[in-house]
Amino acid sequence: MRPFLIPSLVMAALLPVARADEGMWLFTKPPVRQVKEKYGFEITPQWLEHLQKSSVRFGNGGSGSFVSANGLILTNHHVGSGMIEKLSTKERDLLKNGFYAATAGEELKCPDLELNVLVSIEDVTARVTAAVKDGQSPDEAAAARRAVTADIQKKSYEATGLRSDVVTLYQGGAYHLYRYHRYTDVRLVFAPDVMAAAFGGDPDNFEFPRYCLDFCFFRAYENDAPAKTPHFLKWKTAGAQENELVFTSGHPGRTNRSVTLAQLESMRDSGFPHRLEQIFRGETLLRAWSDRDRENARRAKGAIVGTQNGRKATMARLNGLLDPALMARKKESEAKLRETAEEAFTRIEHAEKASREYEMRLRMLEGGDGFGSGLFGIARTLLRVADESAKPEGERLGEYRQASRPSLELDLLSTEPVYKDMETLRMANALTFLCAKLGATDATVQSILAGKSPDARATELIQGTTLDDVEVRRKLYEGGKEAVAASADPLILLAKLVDEEARGLRLRADATGEVISQAHREIATARFARDGDSAYPDATFSLRLSYGVVKGYMDGNVTIPPHTTFWEMHERHANQGAIAPFDLTEAWKERATKLDPLVPLNFISTNDITGGNSGSPVVNREGELVGLIFDSNAPGLVSDFFYTEEKGRAVSVHPAAIQEVMKKIYRADRVLEELTH
Amino acid sequence: MRPFLIPSLVMAALLPVARADEGMWLFTKPPVRQVKEKYGFEITPQWLEHLQKSSVRFGNGGSGSFVSANGLILTNHHVGSGMIEKLSTKERDLLKNGFYAATAGEELKCPDLELNVLVSIEDVTARVTAAVKDGQSPDEAAAARRAVTADIQKKSYEATGLRSDVVTLYQGGAYHLYRYHRYTDVRLVFAPDVMAAAFGGDPDNFEFPRYCLDFCFFRAYENDAPAKTPHFLKWKTAGAQENELVFTSGHPGRTNRSVTLAQLESMRDSGFPHRLEQIFRGETLLRAWSDRDRENARRAKGAIVGTQNGRKATMARLNGLLDPALMARKKESEAKLRETAEEAFTRIEHAEKASREYEMRLRMLEGGDGFGSGLFGIARTLLRVADESAKPEGERLGEYRQASRPSLELDLLSTEPVYKDMETLRMANALTFLCAKLGATDATVQSILAGKSPDARATELIQGTTLDDVEVRRKLYEGGKEAVAASADPLILLAKLVDEEARGLRLRADATGEVISQAHREIATARFARDGDSAYPDATFSLRLSYGVVKGYMDGNVTIPPHTTFWEMHERHANQGAIAPFDLTEAWKERATKLDPLVPLNFISTNDITGGNSGSPVVNREGELVGLIFDSNAPGLVSDFFYTEEKGRAVSVHPAAIQEVMKKIYRADRVLEELTH
Repeated sequence: MRPFLIPSLVMAALLPVARADEGMWLFTKPPVRQVKEKYGFEITPQWLEHLQKSSVRFGNGGSGSFVSANGLILTNHHVGSGMIEKLSTKERDLLKNGFYAATAGEELKCPDLELNVLVSIEDVTARVTAAVKDGQSPDEAAAARRAVTADIQKKSYEATGLRSDVVTLYQGGAYHLYRYHRYTDVRLVFAPDVMAAAFGGDPDNFEFPRYCLDFCFFRAYENDAPAKTPHFLKWKTAGAQENELVFTSGHPGRTNRSVTLAQLESMRDSGFPHRLEQIFRGETLLRAWSDRDRENARRAKGAIVGTQNGRKATMARLNGLLDPALMARKKESEAKLRETAEEAFTRIEHAEKASREYEMRLRMLEGGDGFGSGLFGIARTLLRVADESAKPEGERLGEYRQASRPSLELDLLSTEPVYKDMETLRMANALTFLCAKLGATDATVQSILAGKSPDARATELIQGTTLDDVEVRRKLYEGGKEAVAASADPLILLAKLVDEEARGLRLRADATGEVISQAHREIATARFARDGDSAYPDATFSLRLSYGVVKGYMDGNVTIPPHTTFWEMHERHANQGAIAPFDLTEAWKERATKLDPLVPLNFISTNDITGGNSGSPVVNREGELVGLIFDSNAPGLVSDFFYTEEKGRAVSVHPAAIQEVMKKIYRADRVLEELTH
Repeated sequence: MRPFLIPSLVMAALLPVARADEGMWLFTKPPVRQVKEKYGFEITPQWLEHLQKSSVRFGNGGSGSFVSANGLILTNHHVGSGMIEKLSTKERDLLKNGFYAATAGEELKCPDLELNVLVSIEDVTARVTAAVKDGQSPDEAAAARRAVTADIQKKSYEATGLRSDVVTLYQGGAYHLYRYHRYTDVRLVFAPDVMAAAFGGDPDNFEFPRYCLDFCFFRAYENDAPAKTPHFLKWKTAGAQENELVFTSGHPGRTNRSVTLAQLESMRDSGFPHRLEQIFRGETLLRAWSDRDRENARRAKGAIVGTQNGRKATMARLNGLLDPALMARKKESEAKLRETAEEAFTRIEHAEKASREYEMRLRMLEGGDGFGSGLFGIARTLLRVADESAKPEGERLGEYRQASRPSLELDLLSTEPVYKDMETLRMANALTFLCAKLGATDATVQSILAGKSPDARATELIQGTTLDDVEVRRKLYEGGKEAVAASADPLILLAKLVDEEARGLRLRADATGEVISQAHREIATARFARDGDSAYPDATFSLRLSYGVVKGYMDGNVTIPPHTTFWEMHERHANQGAIAPFDLTEAWKERATKLDPLVPLNFISTNDITGGNSGSPVVNREGELVGLIFDSNAPGLVSDFFYTEEKGRAVSVHPAAIQEVMKKIYRADRVLEELTH
């Protein structure tokens, strides 16, 4: 699972009824009754506080936990890998070779990692809602909410010195002020090599059985010394047994359990099939192009890995939406709410239906699916930033407002290499896709192709553009409207050609989006008025508790046991011919016979998680650390919309496996000592 | 290019005006005037006869030529590879290791290869057309034509002992009787290893520059001795120079240059995009599944190679149909004919338009795209063969008539292994595709899915069926209608569930096809009445002559020179890390330094070719062999519809390269001696 990135969209509320082991629960409203009834365990305030203060949020979108009183933090290798890469040099490839600080002095300071530990939660709903007056327009209301939120955060920070975030819960049903202790001096302590950490690569991504040592250790420092962290999770080598109750504490990023059935149907019938079609095209063509040449392969690698990850996630989610039983469950849960908010549901249905009329043109012409080129994106940005800058701030498209300028400039003037051969391939593919979707005889399509075939037109456009040169971009950016108007760059001309229609489509989509948001707020209000905060809200990258049991499942006729072992990992390595992504380092191969083959390696549990939970600790009733979340299996990916425990599972690294390799493969005795004593 | 397989559909006529080096010309109507005017060369009857009698047709769908007076035949390795595989044993892998008969006695007899040499051509148009009476229904006319054709063939065979085929030309404008000398004792003489023959594999398939030693040698025998072949092509080591006039003589399989603009538009807007979407899905999923496991990779290899070949060919053809200039040319050439056959063109337009209403259901439910499983195909065959056998012969669907029984039984009772894991993958994919195309709420789709998600339903169906067992199939086949009616096999039940709707769609499509065929016959008649046989007819796997010049082209800003060398081949081998499909044998690597690096390896020319021309000789004005056709480049693949010489090229092996490797790598002196002396 890739680290979760903070969402740019917030979806609205329709709260599911919790069943089975479902729920990403607020620490202020834990599932005390549910766990008591089902498992006979009493969640106490002390137990919760200890877990909360042992939990760590990674600023780059993951989770972790303290595992010693001296600030030692356990998380996933794939959460830390961005840092590990930044700490690498040409001579010192820490991803490839791994890292171990044999002494405290060797721990490596990360350049820009912020960790947060949640200290307190305050309900500020009354203050926020009081700021919004009856009769305000949606824009005015939003501005008032923004203002009061900023004020609450500012005052809290001034009073406490703590990072203070107002979190919108239940789609506006509640607002909570989360205060965090920040750690900004974070050092890398230990990381295995990436071959072991990401064993199985893309083929095994989102699968189970699984064999990943997806862990690493950082340490929080304060005043140049290891932080004192009295709240930490005690290491339990034996882990949890089959059917044992376990909890996770982490920061799930975003779920869409509140979207309506009509919205899910749109995704099922239109959005996801379209996205998949695009993924299948892109992956096939990039792989074929990769196969032609080793340099092509190098250039396309990142794009292919991203596409493959998206393919697996999208397919699993679509398969969930195509499960009539899950959709029926959604319909049933919606039925009760419709009694009080029928009209809002109907408005969403109409809006979804209306959007089907223009959504393909929107995707192709405004969304960029019909162009497929990063350079075209740059051309459009240059054109629009020039046009938008001439308008008053309040009338600009969101991404051209002053607050977005730094990130816009970062993108626009990035020196990231542009490969014209790969750009041509992608654009030819996108133009062919455009013809298939809007029709070769469509007037806009004909003007885009300018009398040429997709291949010939893509070649002409990409060969002809000079936007791959950052200095050219800079001049156009700084030259503003006049410079862009004078440009004869073929991609700038193309962006101009479609801009009026593309902007028109964007306006229609924004209007639809506004209707839907408003309806969702009404539904959420109706629900919240009735149920209050007795249910759990959609995920918001804030701390949540989930519970479940260690448990296998049936896949067709095949029994999937709850854990794997080193024996199976080595068997997979050998069966796959010991080649990437199933290879292991020389050091591993030399020392592998020392590993106890029956030690559990990865295990699965029914906990309700999603992206952002990567690195979350799994704890037992005693609050001891019995696992490290690193992935969902494919059936679990549908948790974006529904929790399902038939086959959906959270996948974790077992503490015994971490201990075993740190001792026998990596010989990281200093860290091991700190962990287990 | 894969060997051409004889077409099951014959497309109708709209004859293009020959320009540039266009044309697959009949030997009875060679392009004498065109070649004289453009190149100043006079094609004489003697020159033609020699070339005709030196040309060989391979029964499995390829071409070749005699290159010695003792029956030595040159063709492509990929034309011979089926035979080479059949001649291999577990201990003797002739594909992998190549083959050289160092003595005449070691030449290996092929189990089932038939070669044909065209001896004479007789125009039988009058006899055929006289058999069809005015006022007959289309069915009656077709039956009368079949009867007279069979009679002509039978009488010719009895009189001459020669294989006698009546060939339909100009979509019924003319009928020619082709008489062939047959060779049924054919022996393998020499084949290089497949690494050299198919160097570059799929990545380089349909590409240029290219580096393939795609040749091998057979020998025709009669009475257990090498056949006497006084007509053979003299070997010219120096080959042809840039811009030199060259001819090919071979057996292009099928072209669709006669379809109407309305039909091309249907392919462009619907048929090809659908096919590509299916290919992209299939290739992505099969490759991802392959990557998971070496055994998966072995199982999926053939399916992946086939899909990849189809992808490249389909993409190139679609790109051609999306070229407005080519479509305008088609429109222009059609305009003249519309003056006399306007109504027939209009009928085709209406038929194409009408078919858009049901074609997606047709593809999904009758074409099988919505099921994707070989086992489902078996279930449907079992169901239908039982139903159809109960009907009179004349009322049965074509594939269930008596004449098709042997091949039906061969398929149905094949012991080819069935992999249920791969079947499940393919069926889950197809069911998801079905939902996307017909909609998840469609009544038929819902009954197919039976309340489950595509993944779950596919798993259930494939796990539950016993049709992978040949004995189960045999019992159902032999048990007929009663046995099939009693079967509870889930795939049989599924086939029953959709059969009524699927058969209904088939009837609609057949009716549309009949309207189109009839209209085409009218157009062809109008055209033929006006122009006679001055133009060339669409390809029909009968002997054709094409002309052109050795010539490079521009690909964007890149100049593609007309030939490659060993130096470039070795550079590609090294640059790609010497791994498959760019690897070479150990023997090659040892001896490579002996090769003259500047010897031309593959070259391109403007000759008009298509599938079936694989193995065709390229000859110069003197009728000497100067090359061996083995592929089109990607822009040339559009030749199915239009000839284009802007970038479209035939790709050949150069005789100097064959000579060089036979001498220095394979040390096949005996064959070399025979070739060059």
